[in-house]
Amino acid sequence: MAKQDRAVRTRQELIRSAATAFDRNGYALSSLTEISRGAGVSSGALHFHFSSKQALGSAVEESAAQSLGDIIALPPREHPAPLRHLVDTSHVLARRLDEDVVLRAGFGLAADATWMEDVTLWRTWRNWVRTTLTRARHEAALSPDVPIEDAVSAVTAAVVGAQALGRFDVEWSPEYALTQFWNLMLPRISAMAPAE
Amino acid sequence: MAKQDRAVRTRQELIRSAATAFDRNGYALSSLTEISRGAGVSSGALHFHFSSKQALGSAVEESAAQSLGDIIALPPREHPAPLRHLVDTSHVLARRLDEDVVLRAGFGLAADATWMEDVTLWRTWRNWVRTTLTRARHEAALSPDVPIEDAVSAVTAAVVGAQALGRFDVEWSPEYALTQFWNLMLPRISAMAPAE
Repeated sequence: MAKQDRAVRTRQELIRSAATAFDRNGYALSSLTEISRGAGVSSGALHFHFSSKQALGSAVEESAAQSLGDIIALPPREHPAPLRHLVDTSHVLARRLDEDVVLRAGFGLAADATWMEDVTLWRTWRNWVRTTLTRARHEAALSPDVPIEDAVSAVTAAVVGAQALGRFDVEWSPEYALTQFWNLMLPRISAMAPAE
Repeated sequence: MAKQDRAVRTRQELIRSAATAFDRNGYALSSLTEISRGAGVSSGALHFHFSSKQALGSAVEESAAQSLGDIIALPPREHPAPLRHLVDTSHVLARRLDEDVVLRAGFGLAADATWMEDVTLWRTWRNWVRTTLTRARHEAALSPDVPIEDAVSAVTAAVVGAQALGRFDVEWSPEYALTQFWNLMLPRISAMAPAE
């Protein structure tokens, strides 16, 4: 492997190891020793890539923001209808939050009282929900009696809530909870009656 | 003030000071020095009441559980209909989470990766939501096409999500978000058509 490839890979492994530590123990209690050990590198190698734990935190958040950007940029191929696209994308986000520790840790930093930087991930998600619902309104797919901001709030909070409950309640599946939310909400906000 | 009253009050002030610290900095970064100082007592007095920070964490959670118990025990006086009672109580919970730092810190411990004990507050809330929706079903107030578990999930997650977003997004008001959620959800789950 070329030297540069190895450096890129080490950097990614450090980000993943930091995300795993933040996700498990929170930002404050994660140590650089634990993070370099988790990545299988020396603490010298860690310091070559990241000057501080804060730099690692920012890198985790940046990497999560990139993944979120990829998720919301997915073209609505099979279901061009905006509401269907919204439902599908919320499910992709819930599943990726479950599978991808870097994405989950990035969102986790927003809720971590010991991480003092501003985290924009939920705002990015909310803005995308608003854009998609606005498109639904223009295409007359959104029921005319539904104010866009009501739906933006309900959808944003549903994904956050499903994810947060999954974190501290083993009986709770975020994806299943989201399915239940949409079972109720989609017929309510759709302009057309649900298919029988 | 009698000695015993003073002891009770000191204990409550320590719980409030601990909750303030947990809420602001998370459990791991809250120090006993900061907590005793916040309560205006010596560290000796703190140790007289609590043997450890963990004992303080448990006391915060217990006190929050008691407040939650009071909230869900409120009799539905003005609106005996179960769905109206559910909406009202969810608003009381959202408002109390905003105003009462001990209640908020208790729920916060559930999401705090550095607090290792099991926190039952959200389960208590979910069980109460289920009981209330089951009553609505028996009284034929819940639309027959709404599965109870779908509504339990959606309502539980909505309150969690509204609260969690309020924590890391200053533009977000948990109470307003909950109002928006109910604007959409109540007509959907009610057996009767909404009033015009």
